[in-house]
Amino acid sequence: MAHITLPDLPGIRGPMAFRPETAKPLNELAEILLRDDNNSLSRGERELIGAYVSSLNDCFFCQNVHGALAGHYLSCDIPAIDAIKKDYRSTSISEKLKSLLSIAASVQKSGRHVTAEQIEEAKKLGATDREIHDTILIAAAFCMYNRYVDGLATWAPEDRQYYVNRAPARAEEGYIDFDLYKNL
Amino acid sequence: MAHITLPDLPGIRGPMAFRPETAKPLNELAEILLRDDNNSLSRGERELIGAYVSSLNDCFFCQNVHGALAGHYLSCDIPAIDAIKKDYRSTSISEKLKSLLSIAASVQKSGRHVTAEQIEEAKKLGATDREIHDTILIAAAFCMYNRYVDGLATWAPEDRQYYVNRAPARAEEGYIDFDLYKNL
Repeated sequence: MAHITLPDLPGIRGPMAFRPETAKPLNELAEILLRDDNNSLSRGERELIGAYVSSLNDCFFCQNVHGALAGHYLSCDIPAIDAIKKDYRSTSISEKLKSLLSIAASVQKSGRHVTAEQIEEAKKLGATDREIHDTILIAAAFCMYNRYVDGLATWAPEDRQYYVNRAPARAEEGYIDFDLYKNL
Repeated sequence: MAHITLPDLPGIRGPMAFRPETAKPLNELAEILLRDDNNSLSRGERELIGAYVSSLNDCFFCQNVHGALAGHYLSCDIPAIDAIKKDYRSTSISEKLKSLLSIAASVQKSGRHVTAEQIEEAKKLGATDREIHDTILIAAAFCMYNRYVDGLATWAPEDRQYYVNRAPARAEEGYIDFDLYKNL
């Protein structure tokens, strides 16, 4: 049971319906960071960074929502996403993406954990300043979303297939939920 | 030196000027959470929660910006704010605010650290669901802002008086920076 009385919706959707004023910028941030096509990181890569950080934060809802979206965009199944979350270095993702996931893992601990060597490595592998910026902000933002979801003790569907089934529609709809803000 | 090439502005202002598309929702979130007057927590109480979480995350820029704002709103000096950050239980702030800072400290570790007992205690001391919600989201949001600022290795003025001097104007101006988004 959630810590406060929330609308009966899974995960972040409960507190967002409870407080649409804050849901609006939270969703706009997700839309720009994860879904906007004016980005040299693909949607799949960005969702993967979010899913990975959510797994490090042990947030069941977020890692499944965004893991399923990453799988949808990257055309790979959940065991493949799980393998990346567990040990991305042993998978076949690009070396550049590995260097960005390494930076994201440091951000998950604290901003101060990001080293000049990690940044240099990512740049050497072709990462641009904007890609490094977005990686750090995606990782930081998921440290917020994960804490919001779990700090309020929201509930989440246990069946992981639920998230996989919903991913194509979520990818199509995006993060902006105009119905939620129409009365603001 | 910052990890990427940023406009030469202190703290979060550098990456915000670098990427105004994401600065917009980041600032809107801060405005609603910290400054909007439709809130039963005062601006000073909300800034104090942000400053406290920033001190737990060891983020020099954020704890000084928001500590100075808390001092401005609460009419207390920096040593008094420092005493709260160091050991709020031994200070004269309200028992309700202490219970909210306790929840914020748990969120800083992870959403999963918030306990039913902490929530019950806050409610017993008069905290509403909305106040608990906002405390958790403020704490979560600062876990993002702090990581954004330090993950990019931005610079910050070392003289703490700089932040105190700027606080009254910052309080007046608010967080929305229309100049930053005018070309979006």
